[in-house]
Amino acid sequence: MCYFNRFFWLLLIFFLRVDALININPRLGVSRKMDKQHKPKTSSSPNSVEEVETFYYTQRLDHFNYRPDSYATFQQRYMINSQYWAGPNSSAPIFAYLGAEEPVDDDINVVGFLRENAPQFNALIVYIEHRYYGKSIPFGGSMKRAMKNANSRGYFNSAQAIADYAAVLLQLKERLSAQTSPIIVIGGSYGGMLASWFRLKYPHVALGALASSAPILYFNGVAPQAGYYYIVTKDFKEASESCYQTIRKSWSEIDSVAKMPNGLSILSKTFKTCRKLENSSELRNYLDSIYTDAAQYNKPPNYPVTVMCEAIDAAANKTDTLGQIFEGLVAFNGNKSCYDTNQYNQPTETNIGWGWQSCSEMVMPIGHDRDDTMFPPAPFDMESFVAECRSLYGVLPQPHWVTTYYGGPDLKLILHRFASNIIFSNGLRDPYSSGGVLEDISDSIMAVSTVNGSHCLDILEARPSDPEWLVKQRETEINIIKGWIAKYQADTVALNKQVHH
Amino acid sequence: MCYFNRFFWLLLIFFLRVDALININPRLGVSRKMDKQHKPKTSSSPNSVEEVETFYYTQRLDHFNYRPDSYATFQQRYMINSQYWAGPNSSAPIFAYLGAEEPVDDDINVVGFLRENAPQFNALIVYIEHRYYGKSIPFGGSMKRAMKNANSRGYFNSAQAIADYAAVLLQLKERLSAQTSPIIVIGGSYGGMLASWFRLKYPHVALGALASSAPILYFNGVAPQAGYYYIVTKDFKEASESCYQTIRKSWSEIDSVAKMPNGLSILSKTFKTCRKLENSSELRNYLDSIYTDAAQYNKPPNYPVTVMCEAIDAAANKTDTLGQIFEGLVAFNGNKSCYDTNQYNQPTETNIGWGWQSCSEMVMPIGHDRDDTMFPPAPFDMESFVAECRSLYGVLPQPHWVTTYYGGPDLKLILHRFASNIIFSNGLRDPYSSGGVLEDISDSIMAVSTVNGSHCLDILEARPSDPEWLVKQRETEINIIKGWIAKYQADTVALNKQVHH
Repeated sequence: MCYFNRFFWLLLIFFLRVDALININPRLGVSRKMDKQHKPKTSSSPNSVEEVETFYYTQRLDHFNYRPDSYATFQQRYMINSQYWAGPNSSAPIFAYLGAEEPVDDDINVVGFLRENAPQFNALIVYIEHRYYGKSIPFGGSMKRAMKNANSRGYFNSAQAIADYAAVLLQLKERLSAQTSPIIVIGGSYGGMLASWFRLKYPHVALGALASSAPILYFNGVAPQAGYYYIVTKDFKEASESCYQTIRKSWSEIDSVAKMPNGLSILSKTFKTCRKLENSSELRNYLDSIYTDAAQYNKPPNYPVTVMCEAIDAAANKTDTLGQIFEGLVAFNGNKSCYDTNQYNQPTETNIGWGWQSCSEMVMPIGHDRDDTMFPPAPFDMESFVAECRSLYGVLPQPHWVTTYYGGPDLKLILHRFASNIIFSNGLRDPYSSGGVLEDISDSIMAVSTVNGSHCLDILEARPSDPEWLVKQRETEINIIKGWIAKYQADTVALNKQVHH
Repeated sequence: MCYFNRFFWLLLIFFLRVDALININPRLGVSRKMDKQHKPKTSSSPNSVEEVETFYYTQRLDHFNYRPDSYATFQQRYMINSQYWAGPNSSAPIFAYLGAEEPVDDDINVVGFLRENAPQFNALIVYIEHRYYGKSIPFGGSMKRAMKNANSRGYFNSAQAIADYAAVLLQLKERLSAQTSPIIVIGGSYGGMLASWFRLKYPHVALGALASSAPILYFNGVAPQAGYYYIVTKDFKEASESCYQTIRKSWSEIDSVAKMPNGLSILSKTFKTCRKLENSSELRNYLDSIYTDAAQYNKPPNYPVTVMCEAIDAAANKTDTLGQIFEGLVAFNGNKSCYDTNQYNQPTETNIGWGWQSCSEMVMPIGHDRDDTMFPPAPFDMESFVAECRSLYGVLPQPHWVTTYYGGPDLKLILHRFASNIIFSNGLRDPYSSGGVLEDISDSIMAVSTVNGSHCLDILEARPSDPEWLVKQRETEINIIKGWIAKYQADTVALNKQVHH
């Protein structure tokens, strides 16, 4: 298998991929557009489902340097929903959504946790966009321009991003005279890592964090590299043993057909690819992305993995292995005139941005080197990874940096001893849960996991069809947050008396 | 008074000024050279009093950026004393001294806390030099070259410095197979701030911090700006009311004489200045530095403030006010053929480095705007400060950054709720104690203050003449650190069982 493709694909799997969440075939999941209750659109964001006001903060390009060019600024977008807020002096909390690797307005459309729970807290809601995405792109506002040279993309990293959030939130509290309002930061996936790291690094800004599906242990050898693929495999195996076996044996069939005369034409026809396949790994990588996508976003009520496996199994007596695999693809992606094997490699902001982030500091060594998943072995090879990143971006990845700055092998012990007020929520069917915190670490570092959940489910919009375990997961989280705020409000007076005497 | 001089002087007061500690007139304090027991010099540092091995770590110039020029590295010096260490696998602690605004080998000569206490802990000692000082200067190793342009000095700041310490310490633990050894970081003054901030930002690297004389509240309006001068005044007033009155009235006398024909010649002669005074503020600033120096380093057994005041009072019947002040100067600085009013403005590394640091991020608004100290009012004027820094360095100071990154108005509450294992030690006669943490914040954020102590006394070498309260202060600190380590060692096994199941 061509390493480059595999490698680049590896870069691309780690997206919250909001588009994947909302564009899934309606047969598989209830699409957003079908069940959304649109509110009056007074928002400046035309596609928003929530009444928000948009603001821009003049943000420093580099918080950790005093070179003249580090003093450059950019406009960072954030949005406020104040309709539930009890106002200044109320000490009502602020829910702050920490944007991740996509434009923040995309997130507002699918993340319901803040607006659904703000009313009972009388909370202010703020959504902050991550630098280099959406409307918060330095160097003129264009992603292409910001990413085109090595100097302008150097400022694009997580430490700068969470420093941005601190600056935005402190000015917001000051501007709104909300100094006594505790802030709860919320994020999912990469944004969930940012939320937990934010609580660790800026406890004077955020009282607590909800880190949804945050694989903070998937760095520098802390969690086993094979975890991701083990869980994808387990998901399929649990849905159907025969489906799992069919997928498992399909890879060698693809290779056998590819080696035949006109083999690539045959494969292209069998899988109705939009363009003729250039090699078999193009197809293999595409299918790999389909399976991992289905597993990562294996959400109720229909569960894509189950739907795929039902289609694969149902075709067993009608067609051969590759025909079965194609039926699974159709079940997942819908009945189309053709299938684009580049579906996951589009130059979206997310792909461009995360490609860089994972090649600079967010080095997650995801691979699997043994014959014990439904995928062919594909170990993570750091040496090749480094070489590829270097050839793509001209700089070396820093795989040790995340664990140096945020904590590494002993992170759970450190969280136990030092930290407080973080919820790590995970769905155990989410492949990224293999890098997540899955046990309670202390009475305020809590794991809220669901056996049947997938990626970021808890923070997505609630739906009438949500299963009881998901409703309960969200309730548990809200009760924990209520506890933090009650404790905060109860002891602030006492502490002020004690400390500020 | 010329603001510039005052301003520049303000920049210069905040030095640990090791030279001041060791070069004080032997009549005032027992000089280092007189009571030091020199150990055999196997050290690579020829002036060291301690057997240390010197190492260099290839450090990244910029931890928070991925521009190609941020990948540049420099050699960072650190020194190890392993003669007391129980070795790898012993879990014996590592005492890490975090260098501050001076070459670290200067500190080794006067800071005795680590080597004096390492034996009872079987501890390894490491002294790490701060970037841009000593032998740890990027851009070729020359301070002048590194500071000469705005680009090369931009990387010179506290966040980069503590990230350096994290990187050095993590590689050291790995290199020595000392993963189970808890690290206690220790620093004084600016280095004390670094130690406390290090524990806050890198709890996964340091188990605890001893922050000696660390005015972490002296930023962005958290502590009152006048605190420093109030304490200097209090020190003199407590030593002698008449001395305090003499100093208080001397400023207008200086101005009166200066306005006379040949006034500056008269003042120059009265104070035996090495060069003729160019204006009266040159003298005023010099005396201001002398008084604050005496107060900040008002250490036993002789207490410079007391010695000065005794001389000032003793001269009362023999000479006029300015003559008395001169006698105080002689008592403090020794009997010299002439007195250099530029004594505190030499282009030492400390002066050059701290000048930049205080103009970029370490903006401590020290001033006093009312007529209630023994000094003429001299409010801190942020606008002028900013303008001066801009004219000196071409960039704007960021007075909000320290409180954004490390915590501000609510820092004590945050320490109570979130942090652990920090000792804030202060001598209450130290003017910087006005920005220090002086009360216990929790059962592991402890204040250890001494009524009669001055700047960084506790971490300096112990002497037979040390008063009981100083001996006791150090004992208290050691007992607290013992408690941290005992708890760490006792619960590591239990926690490992609980968390890593």
